[in-house]
Amino acid sequence: MSQTLDSLIEFNVKVMKEYLLPIRHNLACWGKLEDIEVLYSHNLTLSQCEKFVRLYLPKVEIHETSSNAISAIELSNKNDKIYAALVSKFAADVYNLRILKKDVQDEKLNFTRFFVVGNKDVLPTGKDRTSILVSPSLNKPGVLYSIVKLFYDAGIDLTKIESRPSKKKMGEYVFFIDFKGHIKEKKVSQTLKELSSIFAVKVLGSYPRAY
Amino acid sequence: MSQTLDSLIEFNVKVMKEYLLPIRHNLACWGKLEDIEVLYSHNLTLSQCEKFVRLYLPKVEIHETSSNAISAIELSNKNDKIYAALVSKFAADVYNLRILKKDVQDEKLNFTRFFVVGNKDVLPTGKDRTSILVSPSLNKPGVLYSIVKLFYDAGIDLTKIESRPSKKKMGEYVFFIDFKGHIKEKKVSQTLKELSSIFAVKVLGSYPRAY
Repeated sequence: MSQTLDSLIEFNVKVMKEYLLPIRHNLACWGKLEDIEVLYSHNLTLSQCEKFVRLYLPKVEIHETSSNAISAIELSNKNDKIYAALVSKFAADVYNLRILKKDVQDEKLNFTRFFVVGNKDVLPTGKDRTSILVSPSLNKPGVLYSIVKLFYDAGIDLTKIESRPSKKKMGEYVFFIDFKGHIKEKKVSQTLKELSSIFAVKVLGSYPRAY
Repeated sequence: MSQTLDSLIEFNVKVMKEYLLPIRHNLACWGKLEDIEVLYSHNLTLSQCEKFVRLYLPKVEIHETSSNAISAIELSNKNDKIYAALVSKFAADVYNLRILKKDVQDEKLNFTRFFVVGNKDVLPTGKDRTSILVSPSLNKPGVLYSIVKLFYDAGIDLTKIESRPSKKKMGEYVFFIDFKGHIKEKKVSQTLKELSSIFAVKVLGSYPRAY
C-alpha cells in the first residue's frame, strides 16, 4: 500500500474505487501432512501463516520464493510427497495442485485493500470515502491535534490515519487520512478548505466505500 | 514493521531500543549500463529504485528474487555482461560483485526502523520514546480525537500514529502510537493512566530515541 500511495502522488491520478480482497492461503502438496519436508512460500505469505506452520510443520525446510505464483510453479514441477507450497486457490487451480488444507492463514478476517485509479471524478453515492494527504510545512507539536480537531468539529468520521516520515527532512511527517464523505458534500469541502488554509493538502480521491 | 508489531503483542516482549538503517541500494554488473539485459531484484528493492530503473534501464528484463542476497548470488553465478542486480554494499562485498552505480534508490532520505526487543525495562535517558497500542472497545466517531486530545493537553508530542483494522470485527480499529517521553515520567504515566481508564492500552516499551 505504501508504494501505491507514493505512485498516486507522483502520477497525479485519482482513486476511483476501493475493494477488499480477503487474504486466504492454502497448503498444497502431493501427500500427507507428515510427509512434508520442504515448503515453498513467499515471505509475506509465510508470515501470514506463521501459527499454522509453527504448529503443524515445525521441522519443515522453508524455501522462500518471490511470489505465490512461483511457489505454485515450484510445487507443480516436483513429483514427490516431501514438497508442499502455500498458495492461493486460484494458483492451485491454474497449476493443477492438490489442496490439503484450506484457509491456513492465521487471521480469518484479514483483507488487502486495493485502489482502482484513473483520471475521472467519481460522483457521490451517499456512502463514500475520501483519501487525502496532508503535508504540514511546519512540524511543531499539535499539528496532528489541529488536523484531527478540524474533522471532529465538522462531524466527519476518520476511518484511517497514518503518519509517515516525509523523506525530505528527518523528523518531518506527512499524514495519510481517509474519512467518510465525498468532496462534493458541503461539510467536506468546507473542512478541506479550512485545512488547506493551514497545510498543504492533496485530495487523492472520493470514491464509494467498500466497507 | 506490521509483522514486528504483531509479534510484539503476541510474545509479550518489550521494545528496548530502536535504530534507523538507511535504505541504500547499488547496481552491480560485469559490464557497462548499455550491456545490461537482465536485472535481478527483490520486489521491494525494485520499487525503491523505480525511477532509476525506468530512466536508465527501461528495456531490461526483470527477474524477481526472494531477497537481495539471492539477487547477489544469482549475479555471482553469471559470467556475462548482460546480467545485473540491485544489491546492498554488504552483499556486493560478500559475493565479490562489482558495483557500477552507488545509491540508486529513489529517495535519498529513507530509513527502515528496527526494534531491539527483550524483557527488561530500560531506564530513562532524558531523550526517550514510548510505543503503545490502543484498542478502543467501542468504535464510535471521536475515539481518535479523544486519544489525540489527551496527549495534546498533557503537552506530549506524538511522533507516529497509525490506525489499523483490528482483524476481529470489520470497521473496528486499533492505534499504534509513538510519543516522546518515558513511562517513568510523571506526565506520561498520568496520561497513560487516564487513557487506560477509557481504552485498552498496551505499552510496547520506552526506549532511547534514535532520531
